[in-house]
Amino acid sequence: MDLQAQPTSGQSPYRILREADLRGYLAGLPAIVSQLGGAAGDWSISEVGDGNLNLVFIVKGPRGGIAVKQALPYVRLVGESWPLPLSRAHYEHLALVHQARLAPRLVPAVLHHDGPLALTAMELLEPHIIMRKGLIGAVSYPRFVEDISTFLAQTLFFSSDLALSAAEKKDGIAAFAGNHALCKITEDLIFTDPYRIAEQNHWTAPWLDATAAAFRGDLDLHVAISRLKLKFMASPEALVHGDLHTGSIMVTESETKVIDPEFAFYGPMGFDIGAVIGNLIMAFLASAGHERSPGERASFEAWVLEAVEGVWNEFSRKFLVLWRSEAKGDGYPASLFAGEAGAARLEAERQAYMARLFQDTVGFAAAKIIRRILGLAHNIDFEWIADEKQRAICEARSLKLARNMMLETPSYTTIGAVTYAARELRHWQPDFAR
Amino acid sequence: MDLQAQPTSGQSPYRILREADLRGYLAGLPAIVSQLGGAAGDWSISEVGDGNLNLVFIVKGPRGGIAVKQALPYVRLVGESWPLPLSRAHYEHLALVHQARLAPRLVPAVLHHDGPLALTAMELLEPHIIMRKGLIGAVSYPRFVEDISTFLAQTLFFSSDLALSAAEKKDGIAAFAGNHALCKITEDLIFTDPYRIAEQNHWTAPWLDATAAAFRGDLDLHVAISRLKLKFMASPEALVHGDLHTGSIMVTESETKVIDPEFAFYGPMGFDIGAVIGNLIMAFLASAGHERSPGERASFEAWVLEAVEGVWNEFSRKFLVLWRSEAKGDGYPASLFAGEAGAARLEAERQAYMARLFQDTVGFAAAKIIRRILGLAHNIDFEWIADEKQRAICEARSLKLARNMMLETPSYTTIGAVTYAARELRHWQPDFAR
Repeated sequence: MDLQAQPTSGQSPYRILREADLRGYLAGLPAIVSQLGGAAGDWSISEVGDGNLNLVFIVKGPRGGIAVKQALPYVRLVGESWPLPLSRAHYEHLALVHQARLAPRLVPAVLHHDGPLALTAMELLEPHIIMRKGLIGAVSYPRFVEDISTFLAQTLFFSSDLALSAAEKKDGIAAFAGNHALCKITEDLIFTDPYRIAEQNHWTAPWLDATAAAFRGDLDLHVAISRLKLKFMASPEALVHGDLHTGSIMVTESETKVIDPEFAFYGPMGFDIGAVIGNLIMAFLASAGHERSPGERASFEAWVLEAVEGVWNEFSRKFLVLWRSEAKGDGYPASLFAGEAGAARLEAERQAYMARLFQDTVGFAAAKIIRRILGLAHNIDFEWIADEKQRAICEARSLKLARNMMLETPSYTTIGAVTYAARELRHWQPDFAR
Repeated sequence: MDLQAQPTSGQSPYRILREADLRGYLAGLPAIVSQLGGAAGDWSISEVGDGNLNLVFIVKGPRGGIAVKQALPYVRLVGESWPLPLSRAHYEHLALVHQARLAPRLVPAVLHHDGPLALTAMELLEPHIIMRKGLIGAVSYPRFVEDISTFLAQTLFFSSDLALSAAEKKDGIAAFAGNHALCKITEDLIFTDPYRIAEQNHWTAPWLDATAAAFRGDLDLHVAISRLKLKFMASPEALVHGDLHTGSIMVTESETKVIDPEFAFYGPMGFDIGAVIGNLIMAFLASAGHERSPGERASFEAWVLEAVEGVWNEFSRKFLVLWRSEAKGDGYPASLFAGEAGAARLEAERQAYMARLFQDTVGFAAAKIIRRILGLAHNIDFEWIADEKQRAICEARSLKLARNMMLETPSYTTIGAVTYAARELRHWQPDFAR
């Protein structure tokens, strides 16, 4: 992969762009002018403020549109009191280049990147919506399993020791090592804070007060999350997206695009796969909170669980296909597995490797669920359930499942065991609901 | 740790130094002049050619002596046909600085480093000898267990996630990522070649022909070594020495000095601990080949096995002491293990962590043994056994033990199980000896 920031025309010292600034800046970039068409004065520019961290502008011209993302030197959601390095735009761009090469249809095309301005201009995704919103609306996405499993298999396999030489891999690890401020957010908000008293934690009170307290006192859980944290910090298996929830996926019924890889770094593969699966499970268990009449969303809910199974099964199948045909890396040298018996033994080892990866996936999926209910950043799957008690019921079911997935990980030997457990909990009532 | 190469006076473009060159070069360095005393013309300079990779000069003056190590752009043992980057001198220097800070008495003091010349001048270790030679002579070293366990505990703990923030750790990983050419030597010569046909492999023929062939066809072993290789490549647990055999340790009865960390990188801790233990086991099983009368070396042999146990037990004890008192890293946050119950649960987890680390240690120790008997680089513990059949018997015992340690690793739950198995094999006779 290309690990160098590309020098581009039009680079400028950092300043936060306002609309007028941006118009002048873009007018100096031939590729952008050509994409938008017309004269700069004809372009509409609106800041959509969609993310928690950055400025995002939608720019439309007579011929087409673009999205422009600029990093701020702080967390947008919180303000200047929470500084965050601009370099994240550099890592996001590196990751986008990697993903575009390996999964070209599945990420937005980069039209322009300006390192000093921490700015990237991309194709505008229209009429795509954030997948999480679609799921809340009970929309199923027939392309999703196929696309996300391709994205995962391609991006993870080709940045792993199975595809790269150890030297290439170490170059990649070093190239992303500087993105540690973004990793630190994950380390704190996912792997630590939900399990202790932290100012930023919140949950649906008073219903979940007892569960939140129980999680803060559950030492088995603290050991399990600490092991996962250590794995997150010190298992550079592949270049992971690092924030692959359903809010980082834009969809139509016929297209899937993965966006916002600014948390990218070399980490455990299961973190990405678990993010997808954990967020789909939340979509499933939040669904009851959005139904206006019993059973109304049953076919959607069935689809979500099929998608959970499909994501793992198709990822696993595609990853194995790549391993069997594209294993040019330093891991598992072909010369040690020559002949028919060697091939059979290596295939058995591949299955064992996937079984270990599945265990990681289950654990990380659980961690992603818990942080969305007891930590700082919640998701609208639950937040948009207006009836707070009903929301708490959906959240309690999710927490019960996640806790079990984290503590009894080895008992989940197949993805079917996960969806079975989720289905069982769909109608479970916590004490406060009885 | 200090991750930048220090600019020093007297830096010069790279050239291979001859004796006269070196004299002039050193005469320009006040710290060296002061260490040696007298005038440059008074100094004796001899190239001792002790290593496989580099030039090593001993320089002595009226006041004192120094050792000067210069990297060559190729493997000295093989010649220019096997190029090897000079940057290894940079990584060696970085590692020495790290080790000197954490285990100050246990590494040679660096007097001067010249990056472009790939040259480091160190205190001369006198009257120290290479530990391997002492072990061949049946000398026991009463300080050794205490010193090496301190070296291991200090250098590994303080570069781990238990002592560092994730950001510091990633900086360290990145700082050593470029040393991949040295890692590649290990990946090939330890984790791959002994298990396949490779031109450079050799063994004590004809006695070990059948065993070598069996290892090349043993698919269980190929899976096990491939898992260890993957761990070596993708488990940056701590800054490891990377080549910690008894030839990288210089000793007197009262001092221990670890030298030659040019293979240093962030890797699995068990690789260093296993290197020490594997090499001690070879010293033990080679001992029979050096005895002139039965039982002559019995007390030495008993000491070696005590040392094997001591290395693990003392390392483990010291590492745990550090973990309990110096855990300022991002792993296992104290806030998740508050109170008496929390402390007890964390202590149980520490024991579980050490148990996992012990498993790694057993596997890597086995890998280190096998490569010395079936691979390219052999060791004089065996090579100096003049009777080739007797040598083959000692090697066959070692291979039998190593194979079992690698395939049945979980059955070795304590270091006592390892020494018990070694002791059992001390008098075992392979088929060709019967």
